[in-house]
Amino acid sequence: MTDVAAWLASLNQALSGNQPERVADLFLETGLWRDFLAFDWTLATHEGRADIAGFAARRADATGASAWTTEAAASASEGFIAFETAKGPGKGYVRLVEGKALSLFTMLDELKGHEFPLRQRRISGLVSDGGPSWQDRREQERSSLGVNQQPYVLIVGAGQAGLALGATLRLLNVPHLLIDKHSRVGDQWRSRYKSLTLHDPVWYDRMPYLPFPDHWPVYTPKDKMGDWLEFYASVMELDVWTGTELKSARPGTDGWTATVVRNGEELELHPDHVVMAVGNAGFPRVPEFPGAETFKGRQYHSSAHPGGAGLAGQRVVVIGANNSAHDICADLVEHGAHPVMIQRSSTHIIRQSTMTDVMLKPLYSQEAVAAGLTTERADLISASVPIRLQEIGSRQAWAKIREAEAPFYSRLEQAGFKLDFAEDGAGIAGKYLRSGSGYYIDVGACEMIADGRIALRSGIEVSRIVPDGIELADGEHIPADLIIYATGFGAMEEWVSRLIGEDVAARIGRCWGYGSGFRGDPGPWDGEMRNMWKPTAQQGLWFMGGNLAQARFYSRLLGLQLKARLEGLTDG
Amino acid sequence: MTDVAAWLASLNQALSGNQPERVADLFLETGLWRDFLAFDWTLATHEGRADIAGFAARRADATGASAWTTEAAASASEGFIAFETAKGPGKGYVRLVEGKALSLFTMLDELKGHEFPLRQRRISGLVSDGGPSWQDRREQERSSLGVNQQPYVLIVGAGQAGLALGATLRLLNVPHLLIDKHSRVGDQWRSRYKSLTLHDPVWYDRMPYLPFPDHWPVYTPKDKMGDWLEFYASVMELDVWTGTELKSARPGTDGWTATVVRNGEELELHPDHVVMAVGNAGFPRVPEFPGAETFKGRQYHSSAHPGGAGLAGQRVVVIGANNSAHDICADLVEHGAHPVMIQRSSTHIIRQSTMTDVMLKPLYSQEAVAAGLTTERADLISASVPIRLQEIGSRQAWAKIREAEAPFYSRLEQAGFKLDFAEDGAGIAGKYLRSGSGYYIDVGACEMIADGRIALRSGIEVSRIVPDGIELADGEHIPADLIIYATGFGAMEEWVSRLIGEDVAARIGRCWGYGSGFRGDPGPWDGEMRNMWKPTAQQGLWFMGGNLAQARFYSRLLGLQLKARLEGLTDG
Repeated sequence: MTDVAAWLASLNQALSGNQPERVADLFLETGLWRDFLAFDWTLATHEGRADIAGFAARRADATGASAWTTEAAASASEGFIAFETAKGPGKGYVRLVEGKALSLFTMLDELKGHEFPLRQRRISGLVSDGGPSWQDRREQERSSLGVNQQPYVLIVGAGQAGLALGATLRLLNVPHLLIDKHSRVGDQWRSRYKSLTLHDPVWYDRMPYLPFPDHWPVYTPKDKMGDWLEFYASVMELDVWTGTELKSARPGTDGWTATVVRNGEELELHPDHVVMAVGNAGFPRVPEFPGAETFKGRQYHSSAHPGGAGLAGQRVVVIGANNSAHDICADLVEHGAHPVMIQRSSTHIIRQSTMTDVMLKPLYSQEAVAAGLTTERADLISASVPIRLQEIGSRQAWAKIREAEAPFYSRLEQAGFKLDFAEDGAGIAGKYLRSGSGYYIDVGACEMIADGRIALRSGIEVSRIVPDGIELADGEHIPADLIIYATGFGAMEEWVSRLIGEDVAARIGRCWGYGSGFRGDPGPWDGEMRNMWKPTAQQGLWFMGGNLAQARFYSRLLGLQLKARLEGLTDG
Repeated sequence: MTDVAAWLASLNQALSGNQPERVADLFLETGLWRDFLAFDWTLATHEGRADIAGFAARRADATGASAWTTEAAASASEGFIAFETAKGPGKGYVRLVEGKALSLFTMLDELKGHEFPLRQRRISGLVSDGGPSWQDRREQERSSLGVNQQPYVLIVGAGQAGLALGATLRLLNVPHLLIDKHSRVGDQWRSRYKSLTLHDPVWYDRMPYLPFPDHWPVYTPKDKMGDWLEFYASVMELDVWTGTELKSARPGTDGWTATVVRNGEELELHPDHVVMAVGNAGFPRVPEFPGAETFKGRQYHSSAHPGGAGLAGQRVVVIGANNSAHDICADLVEHGAHPVMIQRSSTHIIRQSTMTDVMLKPLYSQEAVAAGLTTERADLISASVPIRLQEIGSRQAWAKIREAEAPFYSRLEQAGFKLDFAEDGAGIAGKYLRSGSGYYIDVGACEMIADGRIALRSGIEVSRIVPDGIELADGEHIPADLIIYATGFGAMEEWVSRLIGEDVAARIGRCWGYGSGFRGDPGPWDGEMRNMWKPTAQQGLWFMGGNLAQARFYSRLLGLQLKARLEGLTDG
């Protein structure tokens, strides 16, 4: 018997014997048990023996986990696991250190009796003698949804997160409707600046259920991504109302009343669940600089930047030094404009090549695929690392990267750029999960800063706006024809305040972040992303959002939770 | 060393030593060597030792095949092989009987220096500093193709065959243009009768480069297929002019002059190559029955049947008993009309379940996928069987099927239906490859014939049409409000006569069929499909066509031939 198999046998004995202290004793003193829906109807990490014992005491009995197996090799101290529960099959991953678990990850894979209709479970497609054809059925669905038939789930936002969840709900046969303010699915990508491609590589960025074909570029051009999402919505048979915005939503005793404006017409919908899938940021944030009203040129927030076409020769001040600021400055250079970037505080920089060739390569690369690491398995390994361990791993990785790439970083510093690697040195992973901001994935702008094509002022505040430009705290005057505020966005929960109500927003609290206590992510420590992809304090209100990989992985988990509610399977 | 490895070592020695008689001696007396582009620039099967020796004498030297390897297990007498040639890597399959080859299949896989940009060879997608974006490049291509820039290849028809070839040419960077008379890609599927689904299952029917997702139905509904092809064209970045028909094409000394009508406007194109991808049939064929002009109701060819909507209660005579006749009769029943099928000669019937669960299952099924048989490997095994051996295998298979399904067939015969299994008992495979007609894949109409919902008259000719119906040779009068002629189509080469010219049609001869000498496929024996996917007697004229599996497999081979010509790589 392998180490892992023996450990699982002990776990099984302790769980089925209802001995929570023995369960806890199978972990290191600081061990972690991350559970996504398998043992409880939420996503949570239980840290340390006391919490683990409490969790086992509360959930072992109802879960009825059994039939634990592992793929781990005889000599391995970690590996994939599988098990059965009363809800359905589960899978996970365990890491042992000297026979005790450093981490256990358990996840619900399917709901018994409501399995995903994939592979050998796919539908036949044959039209029964005299029955409606596929086309008839789709047309009937499209015309009745939201009119004669209320969606069980209303998904606000048909970007990658909304579409991924919609696809999951379609496969699980949960009536749903997606709404999106854009006129075509994919427009949120198409409307971005011209040279944008996805910052992460193809192996990391695929949508669930529909892999990219083998010729797909490593970095998807933004219009191609827009088209792919539109294609995705159609292939997955999603019902999307484009040109539709949520005006308000109020929870009632019997579900929601949601008012939407569809191509100018106001309509009321009555879903049981509302999922906010409008990204992981709130509204554009523009600091109030004195004198802004005196500026004679144009000034706008980065989110309103239409691209640099027509700006050749113009002097542009870009306030901010994160992703948008870099992207816009590079776009301006490409269009012959003259940008000056104002970096008020430090920024974390990771090169795209480092992201692809160092950080993602072990799990998401052509080599990983060739070694049998399907996206599904890579995602499971990623999720199997509790955030507490991710932080440690990120700090270790970044210590190495900073050394290996010292010439790159020192060239940037020589140009006056203020660098940081997150307060604790955890780099991009920390920044992204804590606040979703404070970094730039370098796809070219850094070289432009280093060689001076993008002018830079750093470590200094804007003191005021003047009619022909801006003035810095040290008195420097920078002339400008255009000022772009790349000053970021508010928090996700702003959507709740504005569309649902202050009362609900207060009940929910913060979204995103895990309580690290670092910049943009105040404590207390939670250990999971707050309010994301799991039940919130407001019944029937959920949050999707995140990058493509998160949309892919968490859409399945949120879909399972919604299906369980539709079928009355939750016990809590 | 395995049997297969030892045999390959001998083959390598004989080939590289330029000893054609020794090559031939490695085969059984009646052995077959099927070669697709690896040793020669065409698709051909060389049958028997004399032909094989001649082929080796003519082609071994120029090919320079080497580095033969096999995946065959030590005890196996057959298996996959791989090798290198001067053109590029090849692969294939060999079957040995007592140490001699029953069949050898060799196929060119890639052109050296022009490999498919798949997997580790995929493009980066990043936009170079200041270069055009993906969207700019695509728009530039779309606007200049056929106007400022002539396509190297003009593909006539954007159904599955044309699209599959277009995708191959796109990947190989061969400038091409597809034209299609329909207003949207996929309309040739959408315009079919309502309850139609693909007759073959999902594992057999996928397009090249873009697999169906795992939830795809076993049998794709026709509108869903239409949509999929439309997306395919977009995802694969194909340039398709819809609403465009070829009016004429003439070969000249410097390529072709093709006149097309695009949305009413006549345009001249000058491609180097013209590929006819308009299906494997010619024009609708309607026999001239006496009195047809006296009929008071409507009468039309099956290809003009808009579906049974609105025909409830009507009496419809359907003349013919192959696929279209059955499909239309079933559609009429579903719409409440009363069809009478007139079966003038016998028909071959295969049940859809037999096709899926017996014939295709070993290579194309969920079980085959689970056992590691990718579509690419399944296709290679299929192609590795020369047509001579396919005939033998089909006859053996059908002897078993007729026995196993005797109750089904006898129920049909009891209803008066005239069955056949091809003259030699080779069933569907024979019928399809010989003439593409004379059969029905049963998706439900047979039960309607057996239970009488479709009335049947069989083994009898129509003697004349009368004002209110038809009269049969035995004098029976059958009243009708509508007559549908499900009497088939002419041969593929009709397109050449009509659009290119009688001179070229005469030079080309017959398309499709392999010279079996059976019905619809006169000899002499050729052993490969005539004029299909390979050079024809008219330089620069090619034929695609066939079902989805053929479109997938042969598009790659035809694409390689066109790329080789563009790059000046052919030696003959």
